[in-house]
Amino acid sequence: MRISELAAAADVAVPTIKYYLREGLLPEGVRTAATQAEYCPRHVERLRVIRALIAAGVSVAEIRKVVTALDAPPAGAYDLLGVAHAAVTPAAPEGADTGSAEALYERLGGRPGTCEPGLLGGLAVALATLERAGFTVPSAVMDEYIVAARRIAEAEIAGIPGDSLEDAVRYVVLGTVLTEPLLLALRRAAQQIVSSERFAGDP
Amino acid sequence: MRISELAAAADVAVPTIKYYLREGLLPEGVRTAATQAEYCPRHVERLRVIRALIAAGVSVAEIRKVVTALDAPPAGAYDLLGVAHAAVTPAAPEGADTGSAEALYERLGGRPGTCEPGLLGGLAVALATLERAGFTVPSAVMDEYIVAARRIAEAEIAGIPGDSLEDAVRYVVLGTVLTEPLLLALRRAAQQIVSSERFAGDP
Repeated sequence: MRISELAAAADVAVPTIKYYLREGLLPEGVRTAATQAEYCPRHVERLRVIRALIAAGVSVAEIRKVVTALDAPPAGAYDLLGVAHAAVTPAAPEGADTGSAEALYERLGGRPGTCEPGLLGGLAVALATLERAGFTVPSAVMDEYIVAARRIAEAEIAGIPGDSLEDAVRYVVLGTVLTEPLLLALRRAAQQIVSSERFAGDP
Repeated sequence: MRISELAAAADVAVPTIKYYLREGLLPEGVRTAATQAEYCPRHVERLRVIRALIAAGVSVAEIRKVVTALDAPPAGAYDLLGVAHAAVTPAAPEGADTGSAEALYERLGGRPGTCEPGLLGGLAVALATLERAGFTVPSAVMDEYIVAARRIAEAEIAGIPGDSLEDAVRYVVLGTVLTEPLLLALRRAAQQIVSSERFAGDP
């Protein structure tokens, strides 16, 4: 298909597609004339991945890492999905006290010493924020957070589509980032429901 | 205690305490001289609530609503905690299509038509973001989100301290807002763990 047809198929403007081509995010089409190239359905798939990463707030430099991994997939599916996951995980300051974070990682089922520094930093920052505010998560609540995080992740990983690498990467990127507001909104709605069940009519 | 002692006990600077007094967030002490007043342990408790709300990013106007509710508690504990919960729940645009959001609310156990507009709006916005990106949460994953949100909320509501209204409000405020980064970080760490368990060594 021509670039205008690609634009229509992927619902992305032609100048935007040209930008992705210049940035090396989208592979060139097969040139059929000086000013014309032919694109294929894989370009549509790739455009959907790029749009997903952009929707998730990922920078062009990080997107390049993901598409490079897609073009030359690392040895294992885990490594490819790891690249996608890392691209959407904000870099947390290293050097924070990660002792308590490491302990949580192990309670989630992680092997000691195998947590990515960014993830460990994210946990450490979250714990430090609570500590600074003088707030202690009751241990029964923390137990539930850990069980819930593990069960959610199991359902999510089981749901990774197996048809194409592009689909899998798109699912990991959007399923990790764009579902965060949904999870938090569901929790707040559940808090309201459970609170009203427990306290309604209290004097 | 004097204002300097209150400042030391609550770990808040004296000028900051004076600002809270002027804004009506902190009740006046008992005046003992033209330029002196006496404060009590309840002022320390109140300062901790105010600091919690500020840490959670709540505006002075919203904080005033919470402390007003603390000073003249509504009929039920649920109403008081509802005021605190509402203060830390960002107002979501109303008028969005809330049909799917209402359905989720009912799946969480909520009675039809009883969801606060802000909460319903938050759910609707989260769903619209996913739809715009063309991402569908697999139904098995959505089931798990709902179970997890409900279980987390049950543990959290059961953990509300019963000693003082101030403690309960502080717990609701900080436990709702400041734990969000922790929950999201735990989920991302769990995704990495489960993904490595499932895919490690995959060709």
